[in-house]
Amino acid sequence: MNKTVVPAIETVMADIGRAACQAAHRLALVETSRKNAALVGAAAALRRSSAAVLAANARDVAAATAKGLSGALLDRLALDGKRVEAMAKGLEDIAALPDPIGTEIARWQRPNGLDIARVRVPIGVIGIIYESRPNVTADAGGLCLKSGNAAILRGGSESFQSSSAILACLQEGLSSAGLPPASIQMVPTTDRAAVGVMLRMNGVIDVIVPRGGRSLIERVIEESRIPLFQHLEGLCHTYVDGAADLTMARQVVLNAKMRRTGVCGATETLLVDRKVAASHLAPLVGDLLNAGCEVRGDVAAQAVDPRVKPAADEDWATEYLDAVISVKLVDGVDGAIAHIGQYGSHHTDSIITADPDAAARFFAEVDSAIVLHNASTQFADGGEFGMGAEIGISTGKLHARGPVGVEQLTSFKYVVRGSGQVRP
Amino acid sequence: MNKTVVPAIETVMADIGRAACQAAHRLALVETSRKNAALVGAAAALRRSSAAVLAANARDVAAATAKGLSGALLDRLALDGKRVEAMAKGLEDIAALPDPIGTEIARWQRPNGLDIARVRVPIGVIGIIYESRPNVTADAGGLCLKSGNAAILRGGSESFQSSSAILACLQEGLSSAGLPPASIQMVPTTDRAAVGVMLRMNGVIDVIVPRGGRSLIERVIEESRIPLFQHLEGLCHTYVDGAADLTMARQVVLNAKMRRTGVCGATETLLVDRKVAASHLAPLVGDLLNAGCEVRGDVAAQAVDPRVKPAADEDWATEYLDAVISVKLVDGVDGAIAHIGQYGSHHTDSIITADPDAAARFFAEVDSAIVLHNASTQFADGGEFGMGAEIGISTGKLHARGPVGVEQLTSFKYVVRGSGQVRP
Repeated sequence: MNKTVVPAIETVMADIGRAACQAAHRLALVETSRKNAALVGAAAALRRSSAAVLAANARDVAAATAKGLSGALLDRLALDGKRVEAMAKGLEDIAALPDPIGTEIARWQRPNGLDIARVRVPIGVIGIIYESRPNVTADAGGLCLKSGNAAILRGGSESFQSSSAILACLQEGLSSAGLPPASIQMVPTTDRAAVGVMLRMNGVIDVIVPRGGRSLIERVIEESRIPLFQHLEGLCHTYVDGAADLTMARQVVLNAKMRRTGVCGATETLLVDRKVAASHLAPLVGDLLNAGCEVRGDVAAQAVDPRVKPAADEDWATEYLDAVISVKLVDGVDGAIAHIGQYGSHHTDSIITADPDAAARFFAEVDSAIVLHNASTQFADGGEFGMGAEIGISTGKLHARGPVGVEQLTSFKYVVRGSGQVRP
Repeated sequence: MNKTVVPAIETVMADIGRAACQAAHRLALVETSRKNAALVGAAAALRRSSAAVLAANARDVAAATAKGLSGALLDRLALDGKRVEAMAKGLEDIAALPDPIGTEIARWQRPNGLDIARVRVPIGVIGIIYESRPNVTADAGGLCLKSGNAAILRGGSESFQSSSAILACLQEGLSSAGLPPASIQMVPTTDRAAVGVMLRMNGVIDVIVPRGGRSLIERVIEESRIPLFQHLEGLCHTYVDGAADLTMARQVVLNAKMRRTGVCGATETLLVDRKVAASHLAPLVGDLLNAGCEVRGDVAAQAVDPRVKPAADEDWATEYLDAVISVKLVDGVDGAIAHIGQYGSHHTDSIITADPDAAARFFAEVDSAIVLHNASTQFADGGEFGMGAEIGISTGKLHARGPVGVEQLTSFKYVVRGSGQVRP
């Protein structure tokens, strides 16, 4: 590391932090219509500047290709006209969401006449650290703005040009609505040291949202002095119980794995009750194989089809994010709960059963943000929950658990109205 | 530091962590009546063992006296029959609170028929790091138990004997109700290295609640890899506006400072609108002086009474927790908001005014967990809010802000009921 660079980064970050705090103070008090005008203005700017955004993205893609980045990474990085339009539409959708700020979550009177209200307020300054997807710049910036927070974005170095071009559109929207451009800022360097500085800006940044792979998350947990909305991996399970309807189980399992394999709510492990192995295992595994999914199974699963590969121990702990699934027989709902307790990531898990008692046990004992009965794990999504756009799915248990949308990006204060009360 | 001790502590803490996780799993599923029986049983054990608790406390007090600890610290440490009874009563009060676990916070249907509920669940394992007050052992242990969490307590070394004796009573209550004694554990050593080990037990401990002075909190922020419920200092302000009724202002200010000076909700700085300095300052300051409060004022405050001492810059940033107050003239509500923004600790601040617009500005712009209008800052208390006992007042903005009672010691999960839905 270049020693002379570090103080410069710290100065840059301190300036960004100061500007963010000032912007946050303003955003906390601003009316809804102005925030919405900025979002709609940013969407218009994105559409107007589509060519510039795509040109910047082409430079990122060329550099990434030269560095030899893999196909999946390039696919996440690459933009086209459709993806730019989706970003613009996403910002308009956020503008259409109800504004959570200022709403009374609860209000009650005390016997002494004090009137106590719990009122939603912004969190303040939110730091988002992400990897190659440039659309996170627009999504995260828009969600923070709608919830009255200033955002400091730190994207992956591969998407730096794309994110900068998108940021310019967001700031154009802010300016057009009379809001400070510093409401959404980006760390203006790809130096990794900037992340370290950012993670120690407690007192300036109120929460860090890390979005990325395990190594990014682990670095953030280790170095951060700031609270996190942890989005760990989604090692999701679907358990087909002995009392499952086979037709329903086949439809749900196939959807849970194969609808989209790269999303965090995709099922990675299929657990089947040993009691129905004879009737259920072969059709479940066969559907997956026929849909082009690689199946890695225990001995029982291997026995039903020669295309099934043997699962190794690490398969039960692997989030494939690909057309691969691990399959295992378990002893009823207890076996499923134990397996998920050992290998799960507290994200999303589903039970397929016609037995309400088994479902109740699964709901109570599987310690995940989202537990489902007779539904696909792919419903793990803020939009599907009716919460609008989301910044991620939190696997932590504090503040935000599950989909993190505009409401989860808020805090609250207690507003107490009196008439001269003193405490005895 | 003795190098041979460190691995031993790590082993001890790992065993405690494992036992806590097992206990937490059991507590999450246990019926309310059993938790309440354990709390009532612990209260009975405390009353039965009062002599043993007091004897252990006498050993702590003797050791602290020999070490030359100050009067205020000794007062926090010392127990008597009344304080033991208060602890027992406190546990019974917690038993009488409603059980938050299992309640549906929200429930809604989606157009596709999915039924989504947000259901309260325990957080898991809670670590509490505190200083000399032995009663925290009973209060924190009881609150964690009621909310279905396992607790790992780490008290100050000065109160080690007292806390151990109190813990024995809590565990007696747990055993009598058929609950694992490991539901409430204490770090069995006064070695400070244990705190460092504890703060890195992420994946085992879900949240750390530090209760103590600034140096403890700063160490915890620096070292912890676990989310915190931060209880920073309570640098609370009362602002007497130009439109304040003088009689009300005198009563509220005197109560806010002098009712109890050692609580975090005690006012530490009085701000007075320059517009009413001539009429309001002398009586406000006079009341405080006559009640035995030391007043440290700006030039204007010094002019009203020879007993007023000059305030230094650091006075505006000092939480006295004593019969001392700093007093300053400000330019209206804007001046008060600016002063509190610069020096406040985001805890509790009050405005005294008959002007609803000034109150509305103060509510909107003072960024504190609790903002009051025409009421004493001493109401900053979970009991006064109708929330029952509290483990502290959080000055952080995430998850728990303000009083942290049983409800704030919970998380939630999304429970989704379907009938075979797949995502399009």
